[in-house]
Amino acid sequence: MSDVLIPSPTGNTRIFAVVGDPIKQVKAPQLLNKVFTEEGVDAVMIAVHARPEQLATVIRGLQAMENFSGMLITIPYKFATCEFADTLSLAVKVSGSTNALRRNEHGVWEADNFDGTGFVLGLQRKGYELPGKRVLMAGGGGAGSSIAAALLQAGIDRLYLQEPDTVKALELIARLDQHWPGRCEVAQPAHLRSVDLAVNATPLGLSDEDPLPIDLDNLSAGTRVADIIMQPVETRLLREAQAAGHPVHPGSYMLNEQLGCYKTFFGI
Amino acid sequence: MSDVLIPSPTGNTRIFAVVGDPIKQVKAPQLLNKVFTEEGVDAVMIAVHARPEQLATVIRGLQAMENFSGMLITIPYKFATCEFADTLSLAVKVSGSTNALRRNEHGVWEADNFDGTGFVLGLQRKGYELPGKRVLMAGGGGAGSSIAAALLQAGIDRLYLQEPDTVKALELIARLDQHWPGRCEVAQPAHLRSVDLAVNATPLGLSDEDPLPIDLDNLSAGTRVADIIMQPVETRLLREAQAAGHPVHPGSYMLNEQLGCYKTFFGI
Repeated sequence: MSDVLIPSPTGNTRIFAVVGDPIKQVKAPQLLNKVFTEEGVDAVMIAVHARPEQLATVIRGLQAMENFSGMLITIPYKFATCEFADTLSLAVKVSGSTNALRRNEHGVWEADNFDGTGFVLGLQRKGYELPGKRVLMAGGGGAGSSIAAALLQAGIDRLYLQEPDTVKALELIARLDQHWPGRCEVAQPAHLRSVDLAVNATPLGLSDEDPLPIDLDNLSAGTRVADIIMQPVETRLLREAQAAGHPVHPGSYMLNEQLGCYKTFFGI
Repeated sequence: MSDVLIPSPTGNTRIFAVVGDPIKQVKAPQLLNKVFTEEGVDAVMIAVHARPEQLATVIRGLQAMENFSGMLITIPYKFATCEFADTLSLAVKVSGSTNALRRNEHGVWEADNFDGTGFVLGLQRKGYELPGKRVLMAGGGGAGSSIAAALLQAGIDRLYLQEPDTVKALELIARLDQHWPGRCEVAQPAHLRSVDLAVNATPLGLSDEDPLPIDLDNLSAGTRVADIIMQPVETRLLREAQAAGHPVHPGSYMLNEQLGCYKTFFGI
């Protein structure tokens, strides 16, 4: 059980949820409930475990609750949940991936995705300048595609996408090309030497036994290595990158910035 | 906000809900969450506001959540929710009214109603003997019908039902008659003098301006007067009954016993 203490929900409490499968690993309820309590907001976030065959029933059920205000979406549903929104942000349109839904004051359900915004804000907070940079992105899933869009919007010059599912990779590049033409391509081994920043947006590293998602041996000295994995805080990728002299950027930076994005989005 | 402090829900927390319309007045989340916390149970109860046209979507949504364990049902849905259960307890079958639904270990949704059990336990806890008694019951709604069934099961001799909706009254008497034949009838003014116990199970008394639900002037000395209204703690009915020398029995006694019933039902 969490050591974060909050007031018990009552009949007046607005409900928020984080929806995923599995759900045990999520940290959003503890983080958001701490914010609600500190800021005196009468709201609570619960973690909801939805199996794939029940996803639509669960989400429609949450949306049908009069005192339900919004939800976060986590694995594996970031690509499946656009259909539950009435309007999509640019980040959602480009990435095809949603991580937050809210009911606005007119009863309209709005979808957004703050993975990318949070990641970019995390870099900027550390003084890292994105315009003109060359970036290797490992992983074109829900988080990776949202981060790719946010990096391009922040002005990077080139995005090299390393994604073993070729169809998925080409589809994402085509979507990104519509907004930022000619700046994305499938990563080739030769690209590694030229990048300023290498980002892991795959699940590799959740376990210490996973293979490394990025070939550190071929990066140039000074290339920054970023991970979006939150747990463990220091992945093997970051540990080995640091040992090889690279500056590193852990997943917690993105999460911290996302929290601010969620607060704004949910009107806390 | 509640002054009951509880651990923040996490990804491991089982979810319970109380469903109604309106919902602001419910006390179940504070009461149950206090119990969860005191007993170290990793669970949380939220209050869910469901409009009539959304009721089925909301309840099916809750039931579809993998980590959702059970719900309490409050006004106006006690009669509408049997259809969401796979099995019905005797109290539900007789009263037609549900106030609790749980998912058992086989994934089967079971409906029960503890209004009656709680009320009867509350009387018994005060040393009141029910066998052979004559009872006036004001109100044949969700709570009244469940209490009527529990009183008959506890051995009362006669139940006089005072319910202005004649069709509703006759239907309830017919259902009770199937289990306890010949012991229920529509209340007539002459019955009042003969009863040992008079119970208010109508909403009259929520406001101090409401008319009295029971004609106190025609009760015999010593007739016990019970109310199931929780808020205000002392209704005008109880105040005037006490002034007239009758023993009284407030709604909180039923609620306290129901809490124990819910704990058992939900496996806490």
